[in-house]
Amino acid sequence: MSDTAMPEILTPDSTGPSVAAPYEPTDRTVPSRGRERATYDRELVHSVLDSAYLCHLGFVRDGAPVVLPTLFGRVGERLYVHGSTGSRPLLAAGRTDPGLAVCLTVTHVDGLVLARSAFHHSMNYRSVVVHGTARTVTDPEERRIALDAIVDQVVPGRSQDSRPADARELAATAVIRLDLDEVSAKVRTGGPNDDPDDVALPHWAGVVPLTRGYAVPVPADDLDPAIAVPEYLTAL
Amino acid sequence: MSDTAMPEILTPDSTGPSVAAPYEPTDRTVPSRGRERATYDRELVHSVLDSAYLCHLGFVRDGAPVVLPTLFGRVGERLYVHGSTGSRPLLAAGRTDPGLAVCLTVTHVDGLVLARSAFHHSMNYRSVVVHGTARTVTDPEERRIALDAIVDQVVPGRSQDSRPADARELAATAVIRLDLDEVSAKVRTGGPNDDPDDVALPHWAGVVPLTRGYAVPVPADDLDPAIAVPEYLTAL
Repeated sequence: MSDTAMPEILTPDSTGPSVAAPYEPTDRTVPSRGRERATYDRELVHSVLDSAYLCHLGFVRDGAPVVLPTLFGRVGERLYVHGSTGSRPLLAAGRTDPGLAVCLTVTHVDGLVLARSAFHHSMNYRSVVVHGTARTVTDPEERRIALDAIVDQVVPGRSQDSRPADARELAATAVIRLDLDEVSAKVRTGGPNDDPDDVALPHWAGVVPLTRGYAVPVPADDLDPAIAVPEYLTAL
Repeated sequence: MSDTAMPEILTPDSTGPSVAAPYEPTDRTVPSRGRERATYDRELVHSVLDSAYLCHLGFVRDGAPVVLPTLFGRVGERLYVHGSTGSRPLLAAGRTDPGLAVCLTVTHVDGLVLARSAFHHSMNYRSVVVHGTARTVTDPEERRIALDAIVDQVVPGRSQDSRPADARELAATAVIRLDLDEVSAKVRTGGPNDDPDDVALPHWAGVVPLTRGYAVPVPADDLDPAIAVPEYLTAL
């Protein structure tokens, strides 16, 4: 399933004019493989992040890696993750100076790429990998902005239609911040890249696009039937 | 978005009789939070893994965490990941004795859980986290089984309808194995768990189920039009 051809190079230019400077590549953000698919375009990175709400957050505990799925929110060049003050990575971010080394990864799979050869099977995807140091956010206003951003990343507009966290809830919630600094995206699009010798083989080849969507919202058992499904949900 | 209530405890019993013994919990697989949602049921773990093909693989490089999306395949109690022999984690797994410490995580998001309070917003999800040591697979027969499993994890049956890897491709492909030993799953289902005082608030509350599917397969530009879409694809 390696895929060595490179016709779908995604350059900053191919996503339209970029008003912002790209992220600066570093040793960690230049992939060892598939370099032709890596991009540092800021707007592309933002768009991949903004079409997700789930990330996989990696950190090191007792020398071993841990990867946990978690919600996140983006505010400009900052990503926020929240959790219980008792959760291990959030505790570690608060205890460690300057913070906790993390890797935050977001992946969208857009299609299954079926080639004639098993070797050239692949996926169409968009992913972003962020390396950096997660720091505990203590400023009350920044915490409020972060918590709203995390809710709104899941359902845009929802933070304005729910009860904000009260003092007790805020005290139980830790927020960490990861700056978008050491960042790369990888994108694959297009059909299979079969070897010329394989094209005549009798196997079907192409792409199976994947779809994602939302089903009809299911009201809570105790919801007042007079409360209609809000517009920001039907808009999904 | 913490969610402290625990009505949706998923015990092995609630998923039906389990013929196999559960995984043994360890320090690493007992979560610091949401312990009531953790399960070690072997059949449930297998079912979560088998309904996925993408995982997020974490490892440590130069003391810092790295999380990369990658395909995987399951064969019994073994997970396989493959890649170029030049890829960093696969190289590291081969160089290190006894292998590379990894954390492999699979996550399905099934629904967005909207509570009246921002704090109790949550997600319905199924996740599996596997800790362990990834070892390079050198046995040719096990490598063949692993590569077929990775293709079939994406599209069941596809490995039998594609050209198997030839000697050159096999030489360029590394396969690593991670045994299912230190494993946990977490599952959340059901509606929001609002505080009793919040139920009368005028905000809509409930679950937005997420859907995933496959669109109509798109044949490769150079596909012989006489080759029909195979049954294992229409079955998706």
